[in-house]
Amino acid sequence: MNILAAIDSFKQSATSFELNQAVLNGWTLKNGQKINCPIADGGEGTADAIYHALGGKWREVEGVDLLFRKRSCKYLLTTYEEKQIAVIESASVIGLDLLKQPTDQTIRSASSFGLGELLKDALSQGVNQIIVTLGGSGCSDGGLGVLQSLGAKLEGYTEGNPLLTTKKIELGQSKEKFKKVQLLVATDVMNPYSNEQGAAYIYGKQKGGTKKILDFLDERANEVAKQMKQEVGVDLNEIPGSGAAGGIGGALTLVGGKITSGFLLVAKLIGLEKAIKQSDLVITGEGRIDQQTINGKVPYGVARLAQKYQKKVIALCGSREKNLGALEEVLPSVFSIQLGPIELKEALKREETLEKVTLMARNISYLFENNDS
Amino acid sequence: MNILAAIDSFKQSATSFELNQAVLNGWTLKNGQKINCPIADGGEGTADAIYHALGGKWREVEGVDLLFRKRSCKYLLTTYEEKQIAVIESASVIGLDLLKQPTDQTIRSASSFGLGELLKDALSQGVNQIIVTLGGSGCSDGGLGVLQSLGAKLEGYTEGNPLLTTKKIELGQSKEKFKKVQLLVATDVMNPYSNEQGAAYIYGKQKGGTKKILDFLDERANEVAKQMKQEVGVDLNEIPGSGAAGGIGGALTLVGGKITSGFLLVAKLIGLEKAIKQSDLVITGEGRIDQQTINGKVPYGVARLAQKYQKKVIALCGSREKNLGALEEVLPSVFSIQLGPIELKEALKREETLEKVTLMARNISYLFENNDS
Repeated sequence: MNILAAIDSFKQSATSFELNQAVLNGWTLKNGQKINCPIADGGEGTADAIYHALGGKWREVEGVDLLFRKRSCKYLLTTYEEKQIAVIESASVIGLDLLKQPTDQTIRSASSFGLGELLKDALSQGVNQIIVTLGGSGCSDGGLGVLQSLGAKLEGYTEGNPLLTTKKIELGQSKEKFKKVQLLVATDVMNPYSNEQGAAYIYGKQKGGTKKILDFLDERANEVAKQMKQEVGVDLNEIPGSGAAGGIGGALTLVGGKITSGFLLVAKLIGLEKAIKQSDLVITGEGRIDQQTINGKVPYGVARLAQKYQKKVIALCGSREKNLGALEEVLPSVFSIQLGPIELKEALKREETLEKVTLMARNISYLFENNDS
Repeated sequence: MNILAAIDSFKQSATSFELNQAVLNGWTLKNGQKINCPIADGGEGTADAIYHALGGKWREVEGVDLLFRKRSCKYLLTTYEEKQIAVIESASVIGLDLLKQPTDQTIRSASSFGLGELLKDALSQGVNQIIVTLGGSGCSDGGLGVLQSLGAKLEGYTEGNPLLTTKKIELGQSKEKFKKVQLLVATDVMNPYSNEQGAAYIYGKQKGGTKKILDFLDERANEVAKQMKQEVGVDLNEIPGSGAAGGIGGALTLVGGKITSGFLLVAKLIGLEKAIKQSDLVITGEGRIDQQTINGKVPYGVARLAQKYQKKVIALCGSREKNLGALEEVLPSVFSIQLGPIELKEALKREETLEKVTLMARNISYLFENNDS
């Protein structure tokens, strides 16, 4: 019995690779292959998962973070089907986790400029394709910072979050940057650039925004969308995912980027489908599994592929919603690893998590043992 | 695939019958029998489990509880292999749960007298056998109260806990009571009557005893053991289980009672072995599963029988210890039903528990589904 472990990282607790290994450590069946397949959906751990599958080298660059503080950043340079690829995680340079505490002040100050600097560095490396993952960003600037870094002119911009002060955008040189290099923008959200379901209202609160500032940011984003529709002929609010990462999704489409599903992109690069074909049982998972999981998260994506090849699939998680809705049709077996009542803080401890994943794998593998053996 | 559910009650949360039904409700496999087998190990729910298997009638008696307060008690009258049997749960008449709060004062006041009254009532019903379960008692009186009720004279006894004031015991009539009626004393503990591992030191604290009173009770129990050895020729400290229920185990052996494993007794009466033989998969469990479970608790007993017939066995619980020690050899698959971090109080809610047991059964049954189906 071949077993494939492809669990997304448990955020703030353990990495995909560690969790997979913990499963395989607990698996008691002696026969069959055990495959550790680190995975991600375009969020944290995406470059790691791709590196594990394709190898490559990490490039370190002196950059600036979302508050323009100096930051040593790294991204992945690798090769896939003879193409040179750079994989840049937004969260690594302008991530929400780089803020001690998101506040109204940080959302007023934060810019995606630093991400643009990494894009330019990747371009200087002569790659054929750049993949930018949008998960976990900490700014809500409509992506204007990134455009500025790539050569756009922001009229009226003074400092901090450029969406607050920019009156008019001239894309200028930024439009030329990706004529010869393919830019893939990986996300698992479908939100538009502005309005009710837009970047400011849906993601601004967790980035520290008060009602007042979010109203203003949304109003400004609406102006940007209007201007771009008139001048470039692109309606940002008709592009699903343009509201990802505070609007970086939309901004990058203005310079030729193509928004794509993070999970499907990662799945292709790491050869997930082939690995599933070779397996008899697939174990996936994520820190939290709920009705949102169906929106392009790892457990859903893995389960869909497992279903395609009629492979049994099990998900492990730190916590799950009781009713998983439509997800249950592709993922009927979702186990929480908890051993009993426990506090969240205690449950997040890395060693605890890994031990409990190993225990759960042992519990489950016993069920697949042949009684006669 | 025939499935047998035989889960012990989750204390303070749900009964054995309810938990079994919750498992069977969640089981998705259509073929095969589903058997709900209520079970207990001589603790709470023992009479219920036997009633479920054998039928019978409940007899209600006006009695007194451990603080001599009037209490309406009931016990089971049933038939097994043509023998008339009474099943009396100590906890129902002198149970710890009948105290609002165990304190030094309650341990000084509590007597097992009320249990003796029920024994006499059962004798009056013309039964061939009386089963007394000792789990969950709230007194620590060396069983002197029960002896007094059965006709023994307690010299020097004034009131409250008779072990405190009794100077000398004359068994008198009490010795004649079980000449013609078999008395089975069901327990899952092996503690002796007195000394370090005796009733007072091991179970007295949870019954409210302070160090001072426990020292005194143990000293008195030692005197009782000495006197009985001299006068009746029985060494209470050489009888495993004589320290059960504050010493009732030992006291009842003085009048002819036979201490026996609660689990094995229940298992026989409810026909557990036959039910396991007819099953392909056995699901057992208990509120808490830990290294103590191996000491005659339901999940261990069920797992041993399942192992004997090479049936797969799974345990469900509210919480489990990480390392289950030797228990893992017979019970390698122990799942907590928790869905994520949760507080104990919340986790104990009956509806919550049953819903989560159903979910877990669904998770597990999927693993036994044939992929081709």
